[in-house]
Amino acid sequence: MAFDRLIDKMIEKQNPTVAGLDPKLDYVPASIKEACFAQYGKTLEGAAEALLRFNKAIIDQIYDIVPAIKPQAAYYEMYGWQGVRALAATIAYAQEKGMFVITDGKRNDIGTTMEAYAAAHLGSTDVAGEQLDAFGADALTVNGYLGSDGIRPLMDICRKKDKGIFVLVKTSNPSSGELQDLLLENGATVYEQMGRMCEQWGESLVGRYGYSGVGAVVGATYPEQLKEMREKAPHTFFLVPGYGAQGGGAQDAKNAFDSNGLGAIINSSRGIMCAWKKQGLTEEDFAAAARQEALRMKADILSVIGEIKR
Amino acid sequence: MAFDRLIDKMIEKQNPTVAGLDPKLDYVPASIKEACFAQYGKTLEGAAEALLRFNKAIIDQIYDIVPAIKPQAAYYEMYGWQGVRALAATIAYAQEKGMFVITDGKRNDIGTTMEAYAAAHLGSTDVAGEQLDAFGADALTVNGYLGSDGIRPLMDICRKKDKGIFVLVKTSNPSSGELQDLLLENGATVYEQMGRMCEQWGESLVGRYGYSGVGAVVGATYPEQLKEMREKAPHTFFLVPGYGAQGGGAQDAKNAFDSNGLGAIINSSRGIMCAWKKQGLTEEDFAAAARQEALRMKADILSVIGEIKR
Repeated sequence: MAFDRLIDKMIEKQNPTVAGLDPKLDYVPASIKEACFAQYGKTLEGAAEALLRFNKAIIDQIYDIVPAIKPQAAYYEMYGWQGVRALAATIAYAQEKGMFVITDGKRNDIGTTMEAYAAAHLGSTDVAGEQLDAFGADALTVNGYLGSDGIRPLMDICRKKDKGIFVLVKTSNPSSGELQDLLLENGATVYEQMGRMCEQWGESLVGRYGYSGVGAVVGATYPEQLKEMREKAPHTFFLVPGYGAQGGGAQDAKNAFDSNGLGAIINSSRGIMCAWKKQGLTEEDFAAAARQEALRMKADILSVIGEIKR
Repeated sequence: MAFDRLIDKMIEKQNPTVAGLDPKLDYVPASIKEACFAQYGKTLEGAAEALLRFNKAIIDQIYDIVPAIKPQAAYYEMYGWQGVRALAATIAYAQEKGMFVITDGKRNDIGTTMEAYAAAHLGSTDVAGEQLDAFGADALTVNGYLGSDGIRPLMDICRKKDKGIFVLVKTSNPSSGELQDLLLENGATVYEQMGRMCEQWGESLVGRYGYSGVGAVVGATYPEQLKEMREKAPHTFFLVPGYGAQGGGAQDAKNAFDSNGLGAIINSSRGIMCAWKKQGLTEEDFAAAARQEALRMKADILSVIGEIKR
């Protein structure tokens, strides 16, 4: 099952973190932007090329120590189809380097439309008998508001192609409780109900480490809920945003893990991409700074969870 | 406000429907596919070009009688960035013809990431001082599971650029009730709560017709809930899927409208795109058949709601 491949990499690298690649053009050093604008003009194509070079430089610096990247689709879509082409190239480049790729798209729809998203982001597309990969990530974030009709179309691809999904359960943002924390008549909160559904959807997809291919997004900014969900959803692997820039610390993130240091992967996006600022370096040092921050973050989290054990 | 522009077109054309452009390659006639594969090979590029030609032919046949199209992002993403380029070209082509474009992307995220989606799909992107449109639709479907942090970033663009959003409230699929129908402790169902949130989010964006720029998706397959939400969310304009192929009829859809025949737009996707099958024509007649079906659907819905009045 999909998260077995990810967990293998996490154990091998002793690193329970994922680098979020949410590149804004503001983050890209002037030298890269100038080179791209000289070649392509101040166009979406020029911007997209700059993002791709930025991403590749970061991947080159971290692929040996970080198991996975998480590109956020929005930051590519804002640069049009040219940006989306840079997303595809980023995914392919990271996979060539042996990294596991989680596309953060929070996609959601039903039936054949959800099958189309599954083919787009995890599977392949049939073009007159040719099977072509559109984006070909290893996992995709999804939104479960539409119920099983929105999740089951992904199951086949998760099983056949060894891929995974992360369903939004308790998100890291301040207003996540407006809907997610409301108490249902059955005594559960909305997010708890969503967690139950993840356990059910994942039942037939449990892998070697006891975790299914249906994971959940639970934010480090809500450590109590993280702890609660770790207990209530024992087969659900967590993708945990909110560490660093959003305010979550290692002690908060600790609640996402089981006693073997398994069960979760902690994301940092701005912390990695903009590490040069915190380290008092220049923007041209962004890639080396990203590596330093990735090592610091890994050490920070291992300091509270200990060794990641098989 | 955004839906004023849409409502103006609906009144002018006396047509409360939107044509969903969710083109699967299977729907595209052999002659178009063969021409595209001859030029580009059996590639994502060839497939995307075929979809674009198919869409343009349908738009050419309906733009004078149908106020809007609703391309579904999934069916373009499955053909990679090349498919996404065809989405951008479809949006631009329909707008050139005077149509209102609703991108069905069900996007959702928080803060700056949601701003990136807003820029991508409704606004424009700053590239070194140049303001460039990435996709530039008139409205976008979104998922409100993350609460206000996921919706407010869209408000500015809705106000400044006269755009709109449709938040998923009660979706048309069989399993939509798994989460959406659950009863909250406050006595409301989850979908009703989401509808209340739409009313709140839209408060400062109410336009000439009494509807705000924050619309809602409510399925024709649940006519009772449609009626309920029409009463409980009087300023929320509805995008109504589920007519036709999914089983909803004109009498069901009627519940979405106010007494002036305003307040909703009814979507048909497969019904329009695959109309030639139902009409006993050949696939080469798909565009003319789409026009016939668009006229039939318009008449069907007007027969129950009467004239659309200002």
